[in-house]
Amino acid sequence: MKIALALAYTGTKYHGWQFQSNASSVQEAFEQALSKLACHDVKVFCAGRTDKGVHATHQIVHFETDTVREMHAWVLGTNAHLPSSINVQWAQVVPEHFHARFSAISRAYHYVIYNDKIKPTHFMEGITWYPYHIDEKLMQQAAQYLIGEHDFSSFRDKECQAKHPVRTIEFIDIKRKDKVIVIHIKANAFLHHMVRNIVGTLLPIGQGKQPIEWMQQVLQEKNRSKAGLTAPAQGLYLTEVNYPEEFVLPSARTLPWMLM
Amino acid sequence: MKIALALAYTGTKYHGWQFQSNASSVQEAFEQALSKLACHDVKVFCAGRTDKGVHATHQIVHFETDTVREMHAWVLGTNAHLPSSINVQWAQVVPEHFHARFSAISRAYHYVIYNDKIKPTHFMEGITWYPYHIDEKLMQQAAQYLIGEHDFSSFRDKECQAKHPVRTIEFIDIKRKDKVIVIHIKANAFLHHMVRNIVGTLLPIGQGKQPIEWMQQVLQEKNRSKAGLTAPAQGLYLTEVNYPEEFVLPSARTLPWMLM
Repeated sequence: MKIALALAYTGTKYHGWQFQSNASSVQEAFEQALSKLACHDVKVFCAGRTDKGVHATHQIVHFETDTVREMHAWVLGTNAHLPSSINVQWAQVVPEHFHARFSAISRAYHYVIYNDKIKPTHFMEGITWYPYHIDEKLMQQAAQYLIGEHDFSSFRDKECQAKHPVRTIEFIDIKRKDKVIVIHIKANAFLHHMVRNIVGTLLPIGQGKQPIEWMQQVLQEKNRSKAGLTAPAQGLYLTEVNYPEEFVLPSARTLPWMLM
Repeated sequence: MKIALALAYTGTKYHGWQFQSNASSVQEAFEQALSKLACHDVKVFCAGRTDKGVHATHQIVHFETDTVREMHAWVLGTNAHLPSSINVQWAQVVPEHFHARFSAISRAYHYVIYNDKIKPTHFMEGITWYPYHIDEKLMQQAAQYLIGEHDFSSFRDKECQAKHPVRTIEFIDIKRKDKVIVIHIKANAFLHHMVRNIVGTLLPIGQGKQPIEWMQQVLQEKNRSKAGLTAPAQGLYLTEVNYPEEFVLPSARTLPWMLM
């Protein structure tokens, strides 16, 4: 039997999603908890392999088991074995041809910037603090050059293992609420560090150090060295993964409760 | 010269404010940073010695030094030496007879409860999660029995070093915003664990397990064993310390930015 689960986690204490023999990972913590409940070693596959320090409100995973349990028992039981930073939201039986990563048709991320001269002090691990004033409207305009299907080589980490650099961005929506700027971005899929490299290119535009058109130039260069720095991990949240309707999975959550 | 400073901190990683030889404390981290800037060993005195895991948006401290610096240099310089979980808000020269603790005429705390069946996952270290439904209006009514001058022995930790158990509560104000309940309490001073023991007594009332009048009975018993459990530290914030007008200190901040 194949089961899909939705997880939320705070990535601060983990060296990313992916299992590593010499460092703690969300995958390892989660597989350990799930294996206890399944009474056998479980291997999980996820929709988006988040980096060290990146969070998720809606990560989708699947695993296979012959152990028979009610779906709510998988949720409550696994949560009982998990640390407080990881939490299962729901569990659902999926057909054999479902794959958390390969069946996904789109993903969305939110990137949260605290934009004020004074350090926020609290919740530093869940935001990126940017002390210089940013005009979010300039960033919103610049971001529109990225909408649609493009070769995103300029925003692709050199360690990216994807077969090709072409992705389709559905929308980028940038809004400010007082001191908090939220960048919401949805695409069919993302290259390694793609969101953080886009944010790192938007920041100098928002600060007025680069013109809006710089985003178009960077995109056309197809060269990582032409784009901005990689923005820090702690402001990034995986918030949505979508699948074809046939799987009838519950809809996504969005930002963590205290950022909504 | 005597200087007063206001600090904000996330208490999660520290074993409370107070210096301990065998554990990290906010005081130790802060004195180390301040000593670097003063170029001599500095000892600081605080308004409220917060417990392990308790936070502050407005802790007031004072120290003495002969080192001459601009006030903004004390702020920026100390912050440069501090970890991201501690932050100086302002510095101001105060007269010799000022004492951060003994000159204070009132303090206020905020206690933050996330009240929902589903675990919030994010920011667990800055809230208390309570999965059973609470009626905040019942708690608000019960809390009114505590207003004014009383012997608060029922809410006093056995390790409390105060000379007597009489304190004057100015107000307790309990409000809900969606899933978040905030308890705001102001008094001339607080006994050890007093806020957490009051919250621990309010919770069974909010849950309907005890009547509103139970609060009055508990208060009158003057016996710690008659009150509720000590509520967890992570939901508690020191948010205000007030001094006589002669000291002309900047006014308090309130809750952390993402909880306002």
